Amino acid sequence: RKLESGDAAEARDNFAGFKLIKVLNENTRNKCIFVHGSFEGSDDDAVVLMEKTPFDKQSISAMLTSTTDLKQVMQNDIYGVYTSSPPPDLNGINTTIIYPATDRHIMKYSAQQIYLINETAEEYQEITLPFIESQPFSLQWVYNILDKKAESDRIIFEDEDTDTGFILLPDMKWDEKLTENLYIIGICHKRGIRSLRDLGREHLPLLNNIAKKGKEAICTKYGVKENQLRVYLHYQPSYYHLHVHFTHVNFDAPGMNIGKAHLLLDVMENIEMQSDYYPKKTFTFTAKEKDPLYLKYKAAGKM
Amino acid sequence: RKLESGDAAEARDNFAGFKLIKVLNENTRNKCIFVHGSFEGSDDDAVVLMEKTPFDKQSISAMLTSTTDLKQVMQNDIYGVYTSSPPPDLNGINTTIIYPATDRHIMKYSAQQIYLINETAEEYQEITLPFIESQPFSLQWVYNILDKKAESDRIIFEDEDTDTGFILLPDMKWDEKLTENLYIIGICHKRGIRSLRDLGREHLPLLNNIAKKGKEAICTKYGVKENQLRVYLHYQPSYYHLHVHFTHVNFDAPGMNIGKAHLLLDVMENIEMQSDYYPKKTFTFTAKEKDPLYLKYKAAGKM
Repeated sequence: RKLESGDAAEARDNFAGFKLIKVLNENTRNKCIFVHGSFEGSDDDAVVLMEKTPFDKQSISAMLTSTTDLKQVMQNDIYGVYTSSPPPDLNGINTTIIYPATDRHIMKYSAQQIYLINETAEEYQEITLPFIESQPFSLQWVYNILDKKAESDRIIFEDEDTDTGFILLPDMKWDEKLTENLYIIGICHKRGIRSLRDLGREHLPLLNNIAKKGKEAICTKYGVKENQLRVYLHYQPSYYHLHVHFTHVNFDAPGMNIGKAHLLLDVMENIEMQSDYYPKKTFTFTAKEKDPLYLKYKAAGKM
Repeated sequence: RKLESGDAAEARDNFAGFKLIKVLNENTRNKCIFVHGSFEGSDDDAVVLMEKTPFDKQSISAMLTSTTDLKQVMQNDIYGVYTSSPPPDLNGINTTIIYPATDRHIMKYSAQQIYLINETAEEYQEITLPFIESQPFSLQWVYNILDKKAESDRIIFEDEDTDTGFILLPDMKWDEKLTENLYIIGICHKRGIRSLRDLGREHLPLLNNIAKKGKEAICTKYGVKENQLRVYLHYQPSYYHLHVHFTHVNFDAPGMNIGKAHLLLDVMENIEMQSDYYPKKTFTFTAKEKDPLYLKYKAAGKM
């Protein structure tokens, strides 16, 4: 049968019945792999995202005991190289199963050539905005969160104000175990602010509120200091409902590069200086060769 | 007994008898941890370096079977988040045991806390600038390059103009073998421009020239496309003579994060909009707890 999006998928106990179709991409630095496959008895596609877990300071003692086997690879003077095999419960892998997955999911996680796009204000109006509006990007999962229909047990903080309010919750990439790789998302309650492009002076109270209360809530709950939090937005964002990223300064999080990330403090300062700074700005961002937006720029003779 | 360096250490079968003294450092993105400890029955120090292994394309099929347990963390619509626990032999950890380790090993693998500094225009004048001027930062090696007294055989391109000219040469981190990790530095001939802070409208011809001729020279020589080059400056820079970084977009180069890197295109646009954008800007950058500049901010009661 074909599973409908929105159906609650059953929790799986293991990967029984999984058939590998293709390794879409891997990152040997981050220890990630993205796989396209399917489950027995269904025609639906599945995308499996796996990332080795960071070491856990709390449980490292438990790992460095007689239950962790060592296999020597080589020994030179004081340097011994081994492969360790700790018990499975101490060495989990963060795994996301997207099922049923669409072609867009498969494309999103596939390895591709990367290009830089310089998007002027005019190109945003002529190419990017019509593209955003033509796409069936579903924001339903965001509205589920804002309406407490999903993930409400994960909410870290909420300011319910309809203009300046927001919800904080852990990013899907964070398992909430270590503050050193803290990754929290602040999603504004107000609907219709697609991205940085839409921001002007009228949004300063919202941005200030997210910056101030967001940091306070995180510092209180997780015992970090304000000057240990990076607070930023993405352009292009992965979904067009305004949201802010909070990560621990010790965490080398993905998506903090120039050409993607914009510090909230810089954003506020730029808007204070000139209200239409972002509507007018030329944004540089990276795009993959199969990204629909890249193809639009290419079709328009811009690449 | 005290083991002498040079003694062949015995191969260990597991971590029996290991006593944790301190977690020295960890990297949650690379999934590394560095630990200081000792082994029962010895006074010698041990340093253990562990790094999760990258996924192996060859064995991923074996991992995605019924032998890999799944524990559900949450489910929202089509997205299911799990912790997977594969059999230990499919999920090893690369481990180096340095034993006996010296104090220098322990220091080498120890972390320093990182903080974000928000440097206002006033704080630049009061703290940063006096610090820069008081330091014996020698720029002699830069002047040696500009005067062709050193590294002249490494020059990729030169524009000799004293106001808008510059020299391109490979960064020390690049071995010039793969264009995928191309890293080139453009150093301006004009002396006395310490950093981004000093830039104003009068420098636009220089910046435009570096952007245009720099990219042209690199694209011609290395067969890359203009939209595959990231071009940016650092603040704080590692030396206070204006220079520009050119890296390949596929290369996950160090120093491309917000709070460090500033796209040259953004810099030019900001200056065109407001000549004193950079002298007036509040810059956010990271510093380590033992960095002299961080200590100056701390002494001034700013941290």
